[in-house]
Amino acid sequence: MSVKASSKTYYLGVDGGGSKCKAIVYTADRGILGSGLSGSANAHQDLSLAKKSILEATEKAIANAGLSVEIISELIAGIGLAGVNLSGPYQSIVNWKAPFKRHYVLTDLEAASIGAHRGGNGAVVIAGTGSCGFVTVDGRSLTVGAHGFPHGDKGSGAWIGLQAVEHCLLAADHMREPGLLCEAIQTKDPGALVQEIGCRSPGAYARLAPHVFDAADKGDIVARNILAEAGDYLSHVAFKLLEFQPPRLSFIGGVSKKILPWLKPELRDQILPALEPPEMGAVLFAQQCEQKHQQEKN
Amino acid sequence: MSVKASSKTYYLGVDGGGSKCKAIVYTADRGILGSGLSGSANAHQDLSLAKKSILEATEKAIANAGLSVEIISELIAGIGLAGVNLSGPYQSIVNWKAPFKRHYVLTDLEAASIGAHRGGNGAVVIAGTGSCGFVTVDGRSLTVGAHGFPHGDKGSGAWIGLQAVEHCLLAADHMREPGLLCEAIQTKDPGALVQEIGCRSPGAYARLAPHVFDAADKGDIVARNILAEAGDYLSHVAFKLLEFQPPRLSFIGGVSKKILPWLKPELRDQILPALEPPEMGAVLFAQQCEQKHQQEKN
Repeated sequence: MSVKASSKTYYLGVDGGGSKCKAIVYTADRGILGSGLSGSANAHQDLSLAKKSILEATEKAIANAGLSVEIISELIAGIGLAGVNLSGPYQSIVNWKAPFKRHYVLTDLEAASIGAHRGGNGAVVIAGTGSCGFVTVDGRSLTVGAHGFPHGDKGSGAWIGLQAVEHCLLAADHMREPGLLCEAIQTKDPGALVQEIGCRSPGAYARLAPHVFDAADKGDIVARNILAEAGDYLSHVAFKLLEFQPPRLSFIGGVSKKILPWLKPELRDQILPALEPPEMGAVLFAQQCEQKHQQEKN
Repeated sequence: MSVKASSKTYYLGVDGGGSKCKAIVYTADRGILGSGLSGSANAHQDLSLAKKSILEATEKAIANAGLSVEIISELIAGIGLAGVNLSGPYQSIVNWKAPFKRHYVLTDLEAASIGAHRGGNGAVVIAGTGSCGFVTVDGRSLTVGAHGFPHGDKGSGAWIGLQAVEHCLLAADHMREPGLLCEAIQTKDPGALVQEIGCRSPGAYARLAPHVFDAADKGDIVARNILAEAGDYLSHVAFKLLEFQPPRLSFIGGVSKKILPWLKPELRDQILPALEPPEMGAVLFAQQCEQKHQQEKN
């Protein structure tokens, strides 16, 4: 294997999830050259939108790196993507005639885990728009959750927002006491609330989650109960992962910091920061795969 | 007003909801001439699909009546439709350049209520793919629910199915005891279950509701708890409607019969059968509107 060649290789790292897609361009000798952001990229929910978002984030990352767009055909891509835990969407992305030199596919969860522990053993709980847990120790791994919304993703931003909307609509029908939470989310006109949520995308619910944290801070009992249930569930997920005795545990995602006070106290002290972001995990994965690819060729 | 002309008028009655759309062709002197069925018709979720489903059901009803397709331009249509409780979708359907002579728009809920009590005072609780309640007494009316899935529609087929899937996925992650319910719904491969539910349509969850009733019959405690919560909620909706002291109360929709044993006992005796189906309610509404239209013209 030629170490010299690989240190100059242009890598693309993609982290695609339900609400956004991030891409970075990276070389081993110069580090991250540029990054780009685009919209939703879930291969199970909308395959063509996922591909579109990946390409858009990639083009932005290339431009941000000050590189010419033609570099795209030289990129060795690691594509971490929501939805590719299911075999159909996984095969679709693997077989995708993408404009990259080569691409390697992993779940957004695996990318997050590889990033968080720089490819080493460890556990991650993701609490963002969705929720799930993943642990890998010496080749043994376990995924908890990652089933999608609304039947899964308990404790996530989307789940927290959904609980809040449910409550406010019941209150609008005079079947619950509204409380502070409904003042924040608005219940005067349930039609407007429902139209705002639109076509039930997880992201639309997740955008309401900050109101639940605010109302809980002000003592609203419904908001506190929602967050307590979220915290219990996410703690339970973490304890499942800790049964593998990983050397590290990280919580990542948009809800991960705010949910900390709602986690079991004995868990909080064990949480360590993620070492790298998921898109860097996707790059590390692509590097490993590319190394194997070169060894097999030689 | 010419009574003779109106008794020969061809009416179209449409009942469009989240999982299916039914249409009938009707004349006052000959009754229902034919009926047709098509797919999902919710003006809020997918406006163009709703229009497509309405036209498909109409064409089938015309064919079933043994009439020529050109009759469509003579039809006075009553279009009862899910989603038109919201002003945007309502205006879109009102302004639709439909191929009918004239069309009048009402919610699927209003169509169901007019049908159930032949245009008279009364209350209806709908428990089908979705759930809601409606009461009208001497011009005063109240709607409870009808906020859509998954944030609303509590107690409906979709809600019952969602609770079951949630439970089975938690059980698949070893965070709950599976029980009989999961045997019926299958949890060996959560990926397959999630793929089957597909893109989270209410109908996909509602199709799993019969498994919950079966498991409850066999004593499964999780299934029984789900149905008890559904029954409590729907009873609560009915009691809200009964505050208007309507002369009649009907339960309609695909779940309405099976949920009866789970309703409050004091409610069950007050439930009377619907006199006409919702699509006939849409015809009655079109007749009333057409009568006003003719009076205003003269």
